[in-house]
Amino acid sequence: MYTFIELSKIFEQKFGVRHFPVHTPTLYDPAQYILQLGGKRIRPVCVLMGNELFDEMNPDAYEVATAIELFHNFSLIHDDIMDKAPLRRGMETVHTKYGESTALLAGDVMLVQSYEYLNKIKRDYSQKIMQVFNETAKAVCEGQQLDMDFEKITSVSLDQYVNMITLKTSVLLAASLQLGAILGGAGQGNQQHLYEFGKNLGIAFQVQDDFLDAFGDPDKFGKQVGGDIIANKKTFLMIHAMEVASVQQKIELANLMQNSTIDPAEKINKVLTIFKDCKVDEWALELKEKYVQIALQHLDDTAVLLNRKKPLMELAEYLIQRES
Amino acid sequence: MYTFIELSKIFEQKFGVRHFPVHTPTLYDPAQYILQLGGKRIRPVCVLMGNELFDEMNPDAYEVATAIELFHNFSLIHDDIMDKAPLRRGMETVHTKYGESTALLAGDVMLVQSYEYLNKIKRDYSQKIMQVFNETAKAVCEGQQLDMDFEKITSVSLDQYVNMITLKTSVLLAASLQLGAILGGAGQGNQQHLYEFGKNLGIAFQVQDDFLDAFGDPDKFGKQVGGDIIANKKTFLMIHAMEVASVQQKIELANLMQNSTIDPAEKINKVLTIFKDCKVDEWALELKEKYVQIALQHLDDTAVLLNRKKPLMELAEYLIQRES
Repeated sequence: MYTFIELSKIFEQKFGVRHFPVHTPTLYDPAQYILQLGGKRIRPVCVLMGNELFDEMNPDAYEVATAIELFHNFSLIHDDIMDKAPLRRGMETVHTKYGESTALLAGDVMLVQSYEYLNKIKRDYSQKIMQVFNETAKAVCEGQQLDMDFEKITSVSLDQYVNMITLKTSVLLAASLQLGAILGGAGQGNQQHLYEFGKNLGIAFQVQDDFLDAFGDPDKFGKQVGGDIIANKKTFLMIHAMEVASVQQKIELANLMQNSTIDPAEKINKVLTIFKDCKVDEWALELKEKYVQIALQHLDDTAVLLNRKKPLMELAEYLIQRES
Repeated sequence: MYTFIELSKIFEQKFGVRHFPVHTPTLYDPAQYILQLGGKRIRPVCVLMGNELFDEMNPDAYEVATAIELFHNFSLIHDDIMDKAPLRRGMETVHTKYGESTALLAGDVMLVQSYEYLNKIKRDYSQKIMQVFNETAKAVCEGQQLDMDFEKITSVSLDQYVNMITLKTSVLLAASLQLGAILGGAGQGNQQHLYEFGKNLGIAFQVQDDFLDAFGDPDKFGKQVGGDIIANKKTFLMIHAMEVASVQQKIELANLMQNSTIDPAEKINKVLTIFKDCKVDEWALELKEKYVQIALQHLDDTAVLLNRKKPLMELAEYLIQRES
């Protein structure tokens, strides 16, 4: 059995090859580009950890992990187009570097490539693996659409936001663990507990993401700090602020969000001041802890030997402490 | 055995259901929208015909045919975004009606949905079917990228253009027939002949498409006549014109393509005048006939009873005569 860090290194080494043909470089180089930007590889490592929780490593786990990481990067390329994001992991996004049309196609071809890896695995469980993968892929698209829908409506409740985030972010983490568990021969009950562990950890992960977008260290964060504020994103922070702020602060927040001519840096500063006055930062850290605890309870309830759960506990620990 | 028209009707009836969940309508209604615009359904019917060429209809042929038609519509949605096309089948394109971001996502979810249908088929041949499907999907993306690359370079040869068109258009027709043949239990040789039949017919289809874009009847064509000319697309017609035109005409064509302020209708008229002077219209019809004959030779060489080939001959006939 490997630790979380060991699995990350093993995966990174296997993954660090070219995943696309060398011909038609105008299409495949942009696809390969985003893979080389690195990233935490949390989701594919979850496949490996989900597998190792139940059995020795199944070689097919690497194929599925690769498919998951390609899927994740496909969604990043397309999300960055939709969000008009200039930076990803401190570097130019694919569409900024290569243009929107090529980025769109590079994303498409990466999604297809993820299915190529899925098609390499044994027939015994390929249908179930594909089914979970497809359901998850659709949920991720639904989450992204809801995220865009929320930009157009004035008020989003915390429940609505949690549902959107669950679809957009958490189900991929949850499904990664479940896919690994399936490859490890886990029963339905354990699959479900592991899925819920991943889902709640994923929500905690997003609380942290929203927190870092507002309060992160620009040198460590990689992305543009305050990006969500500029884009008027209804994040965990903004939704809670709109719930607890004074009438005066609510009016100011609403005005700031409607003001399209304001200097971005000034807008970020003013919103952050209100966030801090409302103790939104403290609330977010507590909310994250709540979801981490639910996640850990599901891991506790998973019927395998305690010492096999260590890498997953390390993952939870890592997600709580990350700064980028 | 069914005729081409009968198979079209059978497929249309089976396909005319909702293919997406009813929840999250902001995502799934745009996806369903393009499916309801109709279309010729040539590719899925090719799956059915490829199957019936060798055996009684395999129920899995309908699943694969549906996957192919969903894949085709996914590529249409994304191509229309890239081409900034306002109309598709005489109606608003998905991105015009619902916005680019939603169209992008609706395309993504449609591609995933195509794999859901592929995942329903029997394990015996699912790996081979997925492999052909994935290779084809990547080729289609490569073709679209080359098409965009060609917009940025001054001169494209006929060979380069045929290669691009083969990838962008023909391989999907070819693979549809091959996928049907695999489901019908065809051997490698017959699969290959059928693939080549489809590939060459697909090229002929594109010659006709380019021809109709310039010389089609606006009332019958569905799309905007002259769209390729306005977009400075290097079509079969334009590439041949640049080869055979006089020096004076070449200069005029180049000037027309570089002139960004010219009235679109005037640009179309002037380009069409040169096309006609160079007899590009006649040349295109002859070129189409050449590819149709190569296609028919491969059908001839396919080792099955002559009377089973009738629907495929009807298809070839239909493609030669279509006006939209």
